[in-house]
Amino acid sequence: MAAIGAEYVEAAGLQAALSALRERFGERLSTSGAMREQHCSTLTWLESELPDAVVFPESQDDVVEIVRICAEHRVPIIPFGAGSSLEGHLNAPFGGVSVDFSRMNHIIKVNAEDLDCIVEPGVTREQLNEHLRDTGLFFPVDPGADASLGGMAATRASGTNAVRYGTMRDAVLNVTVVMADGSIVRTARRARKSSAGYDLTRLLVGSEGTLGLITELTLRLHGIPESILAAVCPFDTVEGACDATILAIQMGLGLARIELLDTAQVEASNAYSRLDLKPAPTLFLEFHGTAAGTREQVETFSEIASEFGGGEFQWAEKEEDRKSLWKARHDAYWASLALRPGAKGIATDICVPISRLAECLTETQKDIEALGLVAPIVGHVGDGNFHVLPLIDMKNDDEVGAATEFLERLVNRALSMDGTCTGEHGVGSGKMKYMKAEHGAGVDVMRAIKMSLDPHNILNPGKVVPEA
Amino acid sequence: MAAIGAEYVEAAGLQAALSALRERFGERLSTSGAMREQHCSTLTWLESELPDAVVFPESQDDVVEIVRICAEHRVPIIPFGAGSSLEGHLNAPFGGVSVDFSRMNHIIKVNAEDLDCIVEPGVTREQLNEHLRDTGLFFPVDPGADASLGGMAATRASGTNAVRYGTMRDAVLNVTVVMADGSIVRTARRARKSSAGYDLTRLLVGSEGTLGLITELTLRLHGIPESILAAVCPFDTVEGACDATILAIQMGLGLARIELLDTAQVEASNAYSRLDLKPAPTLFLEFHGTAAGTREQVETFSEIASEFGGGEFQWAEKEEDRKSLWKARHDAYWASLALRPGAKGIATDICVPISRLAECLTETQKDIEALGLVAPIVGHVGDGNFHVLPLIDMKNDDEVGAATEFLERLVNRALSMDGTCTGEHGVGSGKMKYMKAEHGAGVDVMRAIKMSLDPHNILNPGKVVPEA
Repeated sequence: MAAIGAEYVEAAGLQAALSALRERFGERLSTSGAMREQHCSTLTWLESELPDAVVFPESQDDVVEIVRICAEHRVPIIPFGAGSSLEGHLNAPFGGVSVDFSRMNHIIKVNAEDLDCIVEPGVTREQLNEHLRDTGLFFPVDPGADASLGGMAATRASGTNAVRYGTMRDAVLNVTVVMADGSIVRTARRARKSSAGYDLTRLLVGSEGTLGLITELTLRLHGIPESILAAVCPFDTVEGACDATILAIQMGLGLARIELLDTAQVEASNAYSRLDLKPAPTLFLEFHGTAAGTREQVETFSEIASEFGGGEFQWAEKEEDRKSLWKARHDAYWASLALRPGAKGIATDICVPISRLAECLTETQKDIEALGLVAPIVGHVGDGNFHVLPLIDMKNDDEVGAATEFLERLVNRALSMDGTCTGEHGVGSGKMKYMKAEHGAGVDVMRAIKMSLDPHNILNPGKVVPEA
Repeated sequence: MAAIGAEYVEAAGLQAALSALRERFGERLSTSGAMREQHCSTLTWLESELPDAVVFPESQDDVVEIVRICAEHRVPIIPFGAGSSLEGHLNAPFGGVSVDFSRMNHIIKVNAEDLDCIVEPGVTREQLNEHLRDTGLFFPVDPGADASLGGMAATRASGTNAVRYGTMRDAVLNVTVVMADGSIVRTARRARKSSAGYDLTRLLVGSEGTLGLITELTLRLHGIPESILAAVCPFDTVEGACDATILAIQMGLGLARIELLDTAQVEASNAYSRLDLKPAPTLFLEFHGTAAGTREQVETFSEIASEFGGGEFQWAEKEEDRKSLWKARHDAYWASLALRPGAKGIATDICVPISRLAECLTETQKDIEALGLVAPIVGHVGDGNFHVLPLIDMKNDDEVGAATEFLERLVNRALSMDGTCTGEHGVGSGKMKYMKAEHGAGVDVMRAIKMSLDPHNILNPGKVVPEA
């Protein structure tokens, strides 16, 4: 890989690219300070690194032209969806042009019989589900934020619902991509499966804009289940909640969501979302199926829960009750931030084999206590994935030091349990330092692929693949 | 990519490699004619192309040593699992060494709580399921043949059951791989999901031995459902069977298998497997769930079927009845061959969006009739994938000509319907000629990846990626 930053910080190249872009895009190119500020990473504790300009493509042809111009002048390209990424994906450490896909937000086609749809990358998941409302279908991947579908594909997002419906890895049937040389690649046909060569779809999903710019996606949809039941169940211990989860999954219960909030998070959510949950490790659950099927699942789960110290269930059968329950879950981030106004929340995202989850959570809680941190936990426990959110006063060096130590220990704990440093947020620039420990020689393979497809390293440089 | 065949046909290099291999592997290296015959592709109408030798590794270290020696002397390496591949994957068009993984057949670990297991690549799927019998778990991917799991991963196999449980793309959590430079890459941790960098697992799955040699796999397992019901249902028309399938899938019925046999195939199977099915387009079905759940599904499916011209169901509740039903389905290939002793069966494998399936099947049947071919059809209709098996007298040039024309038209029909030339068999050498039409510029991306990871083109050369 060309030494990052060596080639493209030449001011002359940048100016030439900007004038070519201005000629083509006119008002759709902006170099204003406010616009550049809006287009770098703010939802992290990583420092913002502003792009030199922001451009708004409206078509695939526009994207090809942007890539062509930037490639000619060796100017970095940073794709931008809805701005909800958490690991510095949107920063421009070497300057360059942020490509904002918000105007490419058309739902091109819904193929109801095939349970799929074709969308532009700027469509958000809520927009898509709103559009699908009368079809009896829905798009299940739900990271909480109303992220863009292009961004969700680029970071291999998931969230609640992944237990039953999978992640963006499973949800994306095809991406159409503009590569670094300006060529257009459609990674797959619309058939449900194929063995025709390398799985370029899955290579692009999770590549975070470092291999190509997504201009179109084909996504799998699912039928809205006849019956949806949601519930809340407190447990005596985190272990009990985890063990109940393991057994439920082994039995193949049709769980769509199974989320753990630790006591600290329950207290935060009670305050923020005006709930009156018992302060205890608590599972938020959702069952999908037929009317008889969900009732059966619920009964089975109740038995499992009581075996592992589960308390009284609170049911939410009506859609509005379900919605407010999940809104509270999705607001967990904001509820936590409200615990300590002025503090910065540090998003973490480890994922371990589910058999190790209880141990991993318990050790993490001990660490939080030992380091004197305020750090509520929410977890996609069905996947073995959880988020601790240390709330840090960034002006207090001791706290920042403790948080840094905590993060290292957290990731090392996950890796030692055969887990990953990131279950769903992606690598960005924030987690690049863990890639070698997690992947070993696999990092060299990633680097070889990156070099072969983007030899001048213009696509989102400084992300995902660390330098050799 | 080095011009294929240019570098490594030097006899001196081959002899040097063989003596180095003989020194290390002794009797585990064979150059006998019979052994070499056994290790090339015979289940196809492609001509056999013998490797120069066959070697039997027993460990990952052995594999590293084989790669090291072959790389040094630029000798091709052709991985061999159980020999059940269908597209010439095992042929050695440029000579070289067939690496037979049958002695690397250990089940290393079953992690019941995590619903996964770790196996060597020579373990077959039946061996694994036999081993799992007392755990309440099973491995669902079922291509019919008792293929090796390494081979199934390499070709991204699927078969019946994919509707509910997915293909090898979904079933493989990790592969450990020896790359062309001898480095060992473990593509993923054992966590259920990860966003940590490029998805090397999915890149290796389906790469057919052209990017690395699989020495270990971590596979997802599933709980054996409480209730399994199987049934057979004849339909008036192929369209009716397809429409019933589409509706059942849209409704999210827990179908595990839904297989179509056309009238010709039903007649062949009646004769070969001693069934007495009505000669009509027929669905073979299997429902997985709880006792109440499967009964509910079956009722719903019966209603759907009668709406689309479905006749009387025959049920198989007992395990032995189910087994004989699926044995008959899996023996469809042999039943077809028995229709015309001495003829060669030509495996085909297109897959289209399910909304186009009925049309695709009907047009294909018209083609069969117009060309005067004997060609029964079985289909994984839930995936939009079907196999036509033209039975051809290879000594009759007119027939071979008609079959060749039929194959071209079949694949073009699939591509024109946004489908793929291969749903599950893989590309091998047999389908390379369709790659450009299917993938366009994607083939250049595949070639760039291949060149970057195997610059001397020693890993299964002449497969998957056509020359520029």
